[in-house]
Amino acid sequence: MREFFLKIRNNNFFEGFIISIILISAVFVGFRTYDEVFNPEIFLYISYLDYFVTIIFVVEIIIRMVAEKSLKDFFKEPWNIFDFLIVSISLIPIESLDSVLLARLVRVFRLLRLVSFIPQFRILIESFITAIPRVGYILLFMFVEFYIFAALGSILFAEISPMHWGNVGLAMLTLFQTATLEGWPDLMYQSLEVQSFSWIFFVVFIILNSLVFMNMIIGVIIDVIVKANDSDSPENIQLLNEIKERLERIENKIE
Amino acid sequence: MREFFLKIRNNNFFEGFIISIILISAVFVGFRTYDEVFNPEIFLYISYLDYFVTIIFVVEIIIRMVAEKSLKDFFKEPWNIFDFLIVSISLIPIESLDSVLLARLVRVFRLLRLVSFIPQFRILIESFITAIPRVGYILLFMFVEFYIFAALGSILFAEISPMHWGNVGLAMLTLFQTATLEGWPDLMYQSLEVQSFSWIFFVVFIILNSLVFMNMIIGVIIDVIVKANDSDSPENIQLLNEIKERLERIENKIE
Amino acid sequence: MREFFLKIRNNNFFEGFIISIILISAVFVGFRTYDEVFNPEIFLYISYLDYFVTIIFVVEIIIRMVAEKSLKDFFKEPWNIFDFLIVSISLIPIESLDSVLLARLVRVFRLLRLVSFIPQFRILIESFITAIPRVGYILLFMFVEFYIFAALGSILFAEISPMHWGNVGLAMLTLFQTATLEGWPDLMYQSLEVQSFSWIFFVVFIILNSLVFMNMIIGVIIDVIVKANDSDSPENIQLLNEIKERLERIENKIE
Amino acid sequence: MREFFLKIRNNNFFEGFIISIILISAVFVGFRTYDEVFNPEIFLYISYLDYFVTIIFVVEIIIRMVAEKSLKDFFKEPWNIFDFLIVSISLIPIESLDSVLLARLVRVFRLLRLVSFIPQFRILIESFITAIPRVGYILLFMFVEFYIFAALGSILFAEISPMHWGNVGLAMLTLFQTATLEGWPDLMYQSLEVQSFSWIFFVVFIILNSLVFMNMIIGVIIDVIVKANDSDSPENIQLLNEIKERLERIENKIE
Repeated sequence: MREFFLKIRNNNFFEGFIISIILISAVFVGFRTYDEVFNPEIFLYISYLDYFVTIIFVVEIIIRMVAEKSLKDFFKEPWNIFDFLIVSISLIPIESLDSVLLARLVRVFRLLRLVSFIPQFRILIESFITAIPRVGYILLFMFVEFYIFAALGSILFAEISPMHWGNVGLAMLTLFQTATLEGWPDLMYQSLEVQSFSWIFFVVFIILNSLVFMNMIIGVIIDVIVKANDSDSPENIQLLNEIKERLERIENKIE
Repeated sequence: MREFFLKIRNNNFFEGFIISIILISAVFVGFRTYDEVFNPEIFLYISYLDYFVTIIFVVEIIIRMVAEKSLKDFFKEPWNIFDFLIVSISLIPIESLDSVLLARLVRVFRLLRLVSFIPQFRILIESFITAIPRVGYILLFMFVEFYIFAALGSILFAEISPMHWGNVGLAMLTLFQTATLEGWPDLMYQSLEVQSFSWIFFVVFIILNSLVFMNMIIGVIIDVIVKANDSDSPENIQLLNEIKERLERIENKIE
Repeated sequence: MREFFLKIRNNNFFEGFIISIILISAVFVGFRTYDEVFNPEIFLYISYLDYFVTIIFVVEIIIRMVAEKSLKDFFKEPWNIFDFLIVSISLIPIESLDSVLLARLVRVFRLLRLVSFIPQFRILIESFITAIPRVGYILLFMFVEFYIFAALGSILFAEISPMHWGNVGLAMLTLFQTATLEGWPDLMYQSLEVQSFSWIFFVVFIILNSLVFMNMIIGVIIDVIVKANDSDSPENIQLLNEIKERLERIENKIE
Repeated sequence: MREFFLKIRNNNFFEGFIISIILISAVFVGFRTYDEVFNPEIFLYISYLDYFVTIIFVVEIIIRMVAEKSLKDFFKEPWNIFDFLIVSISLIPIESLDSVLLARLVRVFRLLRLVSFIPQFRILIESFITAIPRVGYILLFMFVEFYIFAALGSILFAEISPMHWGNVGLAMLTLFQTATLEGWPDLMYQSLEVQSFSWIFFVVFIILNSLVFMNMIIGVIIDVIVKANDSDSPENIQLLNEIKERLERIENKIE
């Protein structure tokens, strides 16, 4: 029976069917947001379709589970755990949810299967995750930098604008905004009226940030270049080593 | 006769004449927008010139059509189809158009010939088109990402600001704005009053976007570096292979 | 006498004296803008100093002119023409100028000597000028793109916001603003109320711009990489060629 | 005794203890900003903890001082001076400070030990400092450029908006804001009403800035690529030189 399920799982038609189900459910999630345009009757049909999609998803994940040697093998693959979580959450009876909001969120959440189903998207996400250790210390440094500046900011400007600098959490959000260079002059001129040296705070923060960011980009580019160089030089080195060996043999023969 | 037309088409003077016609028509499109500055009489003359330009364009495309072996050959080149469409649309009698707006748009549309006429611009556009498959999956991923976030946003914030999050379409436009980092703090603080965790939505979206964007740039740079390395290493490899062959001959002679 | 003037020109002390004069005149240009802080008497002294600086500059350029073989040689160097122009304009009697504004502008203009005097700055400026042909077609393409979009924009949105889209000139300025991604959502929402498809105009323009910009950066990086590769591979190739020659000699000896 | 202290300093447990002390003091700096949430009694305990942290820091720096051969050796390392300054400032009795503000700033200042304690952060900061001479002239050029434009701006626009262009200092801050492309259209349209050519000022400044910035990035990338190429080619060159030597030996033997 496992082999039969394996056959289904690897079947191209089955794969195409699942992807179209995901796409249809994606389109209907979009439809729902145009509630003033469409006939309310259509939303009833969409609800029925929702049950249908949920059933298909459950059947599909069961097929994939049975197709593996053991459940342990299935859960070894992180993407399988991801899919399992999505399907499990979809199974929570929507009526039991105390708010319509949560019910709608669950439906959107299901769209994440678009990411886990398409191999190229999985590779993209994996490339982000593998990049974390490489830029890890820089990210940690950025966090420390944000934290120190947020502590400073909440001490200096809390009374001027409690909405932006009231506590360390709000201040970090405000600094994130400043790091995207959006609306920072307003923040500065606001504080400039009370503390005439507050411009130093913003200018230093922005320059420091751009330095850290540039450092991160350069680090990644170096990485990329070194890899690119490594990938084509082996051919060279191999040829050179062959030449060296041949010369050794010639030298031995001559003696 | 085909040869005669081919001669005209490849004539430098003819080419220069056509480019000056395009440039003149470009300048007059600009002139028209200063209607409060100029004498209205001048616009009458410009209208006559418009007919003249249209006739020149028709004659030019006919010359290029006849210069080809067959019409099929002419339409094989995508840029010829592009030119043919522009000239065809220019031929629609402006008086028949129900609005002055459309008539003026047709004239601007004709300026696209500036792009199709200059070879370097054609190369630039072609380089964009050839780059699409290379970054295709990343663009698709971005679309999926925008769609999921737009669905989320229209559920969470639709009631707070229907103008920005009313439906999936408006929400995607708002997210495009957020991706350009323009005015996003206003959107966030607006929603922060109602849903205190909405900052997560914006911060995650912006960080994810910058990761995807960085990934795209790095992908392109790798591509560029690998190509640049490939283009100069053959010389090296060829030399090494020649040396190897020579050594083989020496080895054979010694035995 | 020419040799004597050449000696002066190449004298380190003389060079240091001129740079300090330039720096002092730079500092006083800054001082003048704090007119509410300082005693008005100090500005009288600064005016005297201005005459002194002008005289020094005239003397210095005469020394450099005489130090050259001929005036023609002097004016061959573009930077000399640049300096000559600055000093000449400084000589216009300030009292003759009909506005205080122009008098002050002339003084600031003199600060450009800071750029022409320091060799590293000259190299930087020259590197910009030499980069123009390399990115020339892309800049021209950008201009054409801006012009076409400006013509479109002034047709579509002129009545909605004459301040931004009134004519092709204003529209190009507005598009420059859009290209810096600053305040474009305001422009879009303004026009969205009247023309519901105006978002396409902005989204296409921003995406096209980012593509062109990316293309330019990649072009420059390729250039840089190819140059960097060329600069270090000759050593390799030379070594390989030497090895090849040596092998040829060995082969000949064996025969 | 020095050896005993050296042992303590290099002890992993001791290092872990110090880092946790730093982290705890960082967390409490954050806590203090939520003064409306927490019981005021908790701040009393935090104050006691502050004294404890200060004592630990003093003990730690004394241990590190004694562990060195001499005090001179200790102060040779810039990071030790940095730590010494932080701890010294922490020792200033907080009650003696005339404002609560300064007392709180001293506590945040202590968080900089997070940067000096973690080796990877030290490397990051050092990489910034070593990068300064490489991009030094470009930074100086930027300063000169900002100064000249600030002088121009304060002459042209001082009366239009004294808050932004009142003097050279304010104008440089405004130009920094313009360089981050934030809110510059407002500044331009403000001045456009009075001086119709002021748009040239802004457009030239922004384009010049982007050129300088691009130049800096390219300079850094060239540096990186040349280094990356150097770091992998030695292997190649060494192999080639070995081959050359071997050939020489063979040639000598044949004769």
